[in-house]
Amino acid sequence: MTTMTELKGFEEKKGASRAKGVQHGAFPNRQTWLERKTQEVAELGVTKQPYCLIIGGGQGGIVLGARLKQLDVPTIIIEKNKRPGDSWRNRYKSLCLHDPVWYDHLPYLPFPEHWPIFSPKDKIGDWLEMYTKVMELDYWHSTECKSAKYNEQTQEWTVTVDRDGETIVLRPKQLVLATGMSGIPYVPEIPGANKFKGAQHHSSKHTSGEEYSGKTCVVVGSGNSAHDICADLWEHGADVTMIQRSSTHVAKSDSLMELGLSGLYSEAAVKSGITTDIADLIFASVPYKIMHTFHIPVYKAIAERDAEFYQRLRKAGFLLDFGEDGSGLFMKYLRRGSGYYIDVGASELIAEGKIKLKSGVDIERIKEHSVVLTDGTELPADLIVYATGYGSMNGWAAKIISEEVADKVGKCWGLGSGTTKDPGPWEGELRNMWKPTRQPSVWFHGKEFRLQSTVWAKYTTSVKRMPHGIPLSDRDSCN
Amino acid sequence: MTTMTELKGFEEKKGASRAKGVQHGAFPNRQTWLERKTQEVAELGVTKQPYCLIIGGGQGGIVLGARLKQLDVPTIIIEKNKRPGDSWRNRYKSLCLHDPVWYDHLPYLPFPEHWPIFSPKDKIGDWLEMYTKVMELDYWHSTECKSAKYNEQTQEWTVTVDRDGETIVLRPKQLVLATGMSGIPYVPEIPGANKFKGAQHHSSKHTSGEEYSGKTCVVVGSGNSAHDICADLWEHGADVTMIQRSSTHVAKSDSLMELGLSGLYSEAAVKSGITTDIADLIFASVPYKIMHTFHIPVYKAIAERDAEFYQRLRKAGFLLDFGEDGSGLFMKYLRRGSGYYIDVGASELIAEGKIKLKSGVDIERIKEHSVVLTDGTELPADLIVYATGYGSMNGWAAKIISEEVADKVGKCWGLGSGTTKDPGPWEGELRNMWKPTRQPSVWFHGKEFRLQSTVWAKYTTSVKRMPHGIPLSDRDSCN
Repeated sequence: MTTMTELKGFEEKKGASRAKGVQHGAFPNRQTWLERKTQEVAELGVTKQPYCLIIGGGQGGIVLGARLKQLDVPTIIIEKNKRPGDSWRNRYKSLCLHDPVWYDHLPYLPFPEHWPIFSPKDKIGDWLEMYTKVMELDYWHSTECKSAKYNEQTQEWTVTVDRDGETIVLRPKQLVLATGMSGIPYVPEIPGANKFKGAQHHSSKHTSGEEYSGKTCVVVGSGNSAHDICADLWEHGADVTMIQRSSTHVAKSDSLMELGLSGLYSEAAVKSGITTDIADLIFASVPYKIMHTFHIPVYKAIAERDAEFYQRLRKAGFLLDFGEDGSGLFMKYLRRGSGYYIDVGASELIAEGKIKLKSGVDIERIKEHSVVLTDGTELPADLIVYATGYGSMNGWAAKIISEEVADKVGKCWGLGSGTTKDPGPWEGELRNMWKPTRQPSVWFHGKEFRLQSTVWAKYTTSVKRMPHGIPLSDRDSCN
Repeated sequence: MTTMTELKGFEEKKGASRAKGVQHGAFPNRQTWLERKTQEVAELGVTKQPYCLIIGGGQGGIVLGARLKQLDVPTIIIEKNKRPGDSWRNRYKSLCLHDPVWYDHLPYLPFPEHWPIFSPKDKIGDWLEMYTKVMELDYWHSTECKSAKYNEQTQEWTVTVDRDGETIVLRPKQLVLATGMSGIPYVPEIPGANKFKGAQHHSSKHTSGEEYSGKTCVVVGSGNSAHDICADLWEHGADVTMIQRSSTHVAKSDSLMELGLSGLYSEAAVKSGITTDIADLIFASVPYKIMHTFHIPVYKAIAERDAEFYQRLRKAGFLLDFGEDGSGLFMKYLRRGSGYYIDVGASELIAEGKIKLKSGVDIERIKEHSVVLTDGTELPADLIVYATGYGSMNGWAAKIISEEVADKVGKCWGLGSGTTKDPGPWEGELRNMWKPTRQPSVWFHGKEFRLQSTVWAKYTTSVKRMPHGIPLSDRDSCN
């Protein structure tokens, strides 16, 4: 593998080349750090245009912003929420990361040694807020993008944003959509939904099972969010039924950690010298074309180790798969970003019948106080949660830029493997992610913590090259 | 050297033993991380008493609080300012750390690689605020200690604090004064001071030279603060005179870094494997009794290297010394905590006469618009800054506990070397710092960033041992 980590002449200032912080000597009317920072904040986006505008201030936008800051690329991150980290804080209250800490480090500021293995959402929220502050990012909270239009002649975007009630027009050269790789929440249109007398919302709007104690709840979907929300509702004393529409891969968290991740992302790996950076590099060095061949044996071992568990899950009616070629969770994640659950407890509830299950069916129609399934069953319901996933990221392009640009770019994410829900044709890398697309100067950025570090060097050096006229190939890949 | 780093049975949970962060499985009515934290914050100091109360939330109090948090010792830090870091933010605006970054790392969360060598005060303030938050410290801002009284029978303190206007009584077992090793600001009583028509304040209250452009200023003192403030006033166009009352050691920052610190605290040291932790350990392994013998040759080399600079400084009338035994800056720091300047630019202004100098004199009396010196000179003055240092830390004990306890404990800091301003007798370690004193259950804690990491392990394991009845020797030293 060949990968680029920095551009000669535009190295980051760190270690021996770090800034001095103060100019020793005596200089009339010198500016202090605080005065300079205050001035920069006052100017950027007002009298001075950002070179790069990042829409979305979750971990993706924040980390990209941090890297560009270190490369001296004037950048604004806009975020609709009030505080960095709110995109985590606002999720259902039981949420913890399903990936372990060794997999989650952000660049520059790794988590300390006592950081828990699975970060609770509010703790991650606080970390992101702190990170944004100490990395001195230009982060506009309470700001929403209203529209973006590219001028081919000036090679400049005209982006209209609403900043806490004030309309501001920005003219960046580069536009990054870091609005969540998952795209826009998808809620299926079901006849009768508008007549439902109970509560209904997409999983992204679910906060806690607390208010549904003693209520009858139906959760549509069988991925991570569906499982987490079902367990949360059960823990709060609700009567819960999961509607599993199609087969799902499940892997127990412990088994994944021990058989899948431990060689690269674990305390043992760290002890043997495989830091997260090295692990990311090793991971990135496997071409996507053959990656599944590395995964198939791992999931075979998991299937054997947890055979009894899977048997009980199947016995409860759960439609189980290991991916179409048996390559399991991570390949599903790369190909379609859905269709799996990292089991942290909900599967046991399903196996024991505590979470009720209706599988191989969908909701056909909704009545005032119930849902009717495709097999004719009618289930009473006070709450319907649609854990039905998200559209592709180009949906954000449609919303912010235009349908035309969204169509020109096409779907984001996926490899083109020919398996279900993986948009083709074969791509060789993740479709449209962190690379030039058919629309000049628009970038799609996002997803899990690990990828922030794998791709950021390659990607941000690309963004950095452009103002200096260094040509950028559209096959400038980390694979 | 023998040093203790942890207590068997009370190891910190880190690395392989770190917390999981979430309990996998399903548990009715489980508490989330946020709920548990909210409950702890609501209870501590109200229905549940802290084992340890730290008075003062600067870097000393914060780092001690972080360590005790990791050891599960219920602790409250109280701080009179509004935000962690304000004790830095509130200082004169040109202030930057005079020690380089390799010397300043806090435990658990080292500064990132791009952190500047000399941290500007507001940047350090933000870091401390972030640190307090992500280390989840119980930090009561806007809180002042009104009084503290020890009950020998219950072995408990009764501490009255004012928390943002509300009076609260706390009953900790251990009381830590982390109120600044420098103690209470010292302003000399000078006849006529109350009749002065201009502005006058202690250096700790000085904010910026901005408002003194074109004014005539007199700065009393010749240590770090005096030099920084003189330079700041000059940079803002004031007419400045420094009153140097006694001889002072000066070392150029670059020379100190290259000849004094580079072996242990530099990018080169880090590259050769000497991390800050290892450097601190090496540093701590030198007994104080012979430490000056290591320093004398360093300052000889500095004196040679910068001979021309020192000559010009002397020529301007500056009273220069290298310590009574030629051991320079750091020994002065350990012995008396005063009497030196790390030159970052002001000395050149003095040598060139841009900062005027009156040396070997003091202010005899103050008139409405001038000061009269002991040599009879009268200097006009619109501003007098008293950069006249601080009392000993036991002054805080006098203020908070009683004069009797302050006298029983005696002076804090210093080695008892027999040199000027170093309280005797010979101690072998820093007097009354981070160790049991003659007053049970009171501790003095503070000072520069580096020492936080040198002493914290030894010291906090001492604090930790006590609730478990593990005996504590009063010679449980890191030397």
